[in-house]
Amino acid sequence: MLHHESLDRVFHALSDTTRRAIVERLVSGPATVSELAGPFAMTLSAIGQHIQLLESCGLVRTAKVGRTRQVALATDALARAESWFASHRARWERRLDRLGDVLGEDDDEDDTSKQKAER
Amino acid sequence: MLHHESLDRVFHALSDTTRRAIVERLVSGPATVSELAGPFAMTLSAIGQHIQLLESCGLVRTAKVGRTRQVALATDALARAESWFASHRARWERRLDRLGDVLGEDDDEDDTSKQKAER
Repeated sequence: MLHHESLDRVFHALSDTTRRAIVERLVSGPATVSELAGPFAMTLSAIGQHIQLLESCGLVRTAKVGRTRQVALATDALARAESWFASHRARWERRLDRLGDVLGEDDDEDDTSKQKAER
Repeated sequence: MLHHESLDRVFHALSDTTRRAIVERLVSGPATVSELAGPFAMTLSAIGQHIQLLESCGLVRTAKVGRTRQVALATDALARAESWFASHRARWERRLDRLGDVLGEDDDEDDTSKQKAER
């Protein structure tokens, strides 16, 4: 249950363009809160709230370095979220291959099979 | 921008344990709304709302089959969400290896490096 809840929070954190952009920025290395606020044209307060949410679900870690707060990517949460996809990938890829048979295709992707049928 | 917004919606859809469970169930094959409602011990109305949200962001497709509505996994949205992780994975894995140098480790994982330093 706890595992589900924490995944809920990680996916919720990632459901915001700005927060994903912060994570993407941190992939290149740690940054101070001010450094993060600059490129994103956000107030320190606004960026602070995003960082707090990212930290609360384990996506980033922060540490006081002198008078600034350093923000860095954390390991577990991203890996856990990605592993949700990985754990189902093989089965869903097989499934998607067979989807057309079940629901019938009604979009452009169907052109290939139509062409095959017409041959 | 549209791409960001649609990723926002996919991650939001996945931020709910029940909706992830529906997706996981559909990995095994399409199901009717009633079949989905059963195992989850939910009302048809509640499951219908989850399915509607999953469909609106492209995670599932539905089709009327006779008097029932068939629900199946859709391709693009899941792949798009997973590719967000994949596109950053290599860089973030390198980054995580070096994290300890920047923030200082304060958990058990640090034992190894401590032991090395003591040698």
